[in-house]
Amino acid sequence: MILYDKIIHKAKIPLPTLSRLCKIFSLLEEYRQKGETIISSQEIGKRLGEGSHSIRKDMGYLNESGTSGAGYEIDKLQKRIQDVFGFNKQRNACIIGLGSLGSILINAQAPTFPCSIIAGFDSNTNILETLQTPIPVYPTYEIPSVLKKENIEMAIITNADRNMDMIMDRLIEGGIKGIINMTPMILSSYDKSIYIRNLDIFMEFRYLSALITIDSAQI
Amino acid sequence: MILYDKIIHKAKIPLPTLSRLCKIFSLLEEYRQKGETIISSQEIGKRLGEGSHSIRKDMGYLNESGTSGAGYEIDKLQKRIQDVFGFNKQRNACIIGLGSLGSILINAQAPTFPCSIIAGFDSNTNILETLQTPIPVYPTYEIPSVLKKENIEMAIITNADRNMDMIMDRLIEGGIKGIINMTPMILSSYDKSIYIRNLDIFMEFRYLSALITIDSAQI
Repeated sequence: MILYDKIIHKAKIPLPTLSRLCKIFSLLEEYRQKGETIISSQEIGKRLGEGSHSIRKDMGYLNESGTSGAGYEIDKLQKRIQDVFGFNKQRNACIIGLGSLGSILINAQAPTFPCSIIAGFDSNTNILETLQTPIPVYPTYEIPSVLKKENIEMAIITNADRNMDMIMDRLIEGGIKGIINMTPMILSSYDKSIYIRNLDIFMEFRYLSALITIDSAQI
Repeated sequence: MILYDKIIHKAKIPLPTLSRLCKIFSLLEEYRQKGETIISSQEIGKRLGEGSHSIRKDMGYLNESGTSGAGYEIDKLQKRIQDVFGFNKQRNACIIGLGSLGSILINAQAPTFPCSIIAGFDSNTNILETLQTPIPVYPTYEIPSVLKKENIEMAIITNADRNMDMIMDRLIEGGIKGIINMTPMILSSYDKSIYIRNLDIFMEFRYLSALITIDSAQI
């Protein structure tokens, strides 16, 4: 779902490991909230659908060996992942497209949200005038200036009104670093310095449909 | 993002190919709507961040060779993918969790949506009584009976109220085949006959944050 163009040549941590470590962070949060203090590589592997060996290998990139037998201390491991990947740094984000999905994302901000959504953009002035939001909203032509002024590094695109090229140009001009694209349009990395994640629920449904279809054809 | 447990042993089409062909289908739709009739493997590859060679190889699984030089006929290729993966069969789906995200998914149903969302479930009776929806909504204990009666094959879980195990048991009892999990909880395949896609926006943000952090550390 991602176009790795850039990182694949630069990062020392392989991307599948990076992805798993982000999942492990979520998992640790789940266990911590349940009051657990220790988790084994077997348990992590089971939940992620991976062998415990590959989990231990992933941990190697963090210089975490666990305590042999007993497993990993949840607090300590979570803190380690947080430090290595900068999760303690709250990065600023914005929402592009303030339709129904954009509106709930703006209003759904929780203390657990891993970034601060501090601005919204839409090209429809009616929406901008009538929307009740806890954060400032702007017309899309202000993307470059607001991003620079507010130090916004990430964007969620919920709707681009068929103006994706223009939106991308403005995001790039504003110095965006990471984008989550939730529109059905597949977004490639226009610029090698930007990371893009395509999160398309339509396509997920198609993928599941295809799996179910293939499966029933083989029974 | 998926636990492939099952298909990896069964499908003849490799999963990365299946995933790319689903993306190609979306891309063809985009080009068709723009009035295009032909697309080259180079163009597809460029948009997907893949080489044109791997695109042509993917097409091989569809027994589609394209017309050498000119590229693929968009209508024909779209129809072919649709037939092979059963996209013309409209499968029934339901929403679990009728909070803000669940509600917009129910109301966002468009003719382009690749499945019919025909039921909603929530364990909160206040929500069930007050929600205005175009489709019937039920308490979660009715999941097994409604799924069987209405032939519902897919579910989107937007919120499980910390009752994920119970929800999963009921979905399995109802004979669910595919699940899109949009909660922050990582869902493993409890049952080998179910396909699961974890679509967690929190984790996507963490992944982007990690990429940005690693990147700036290496400059």
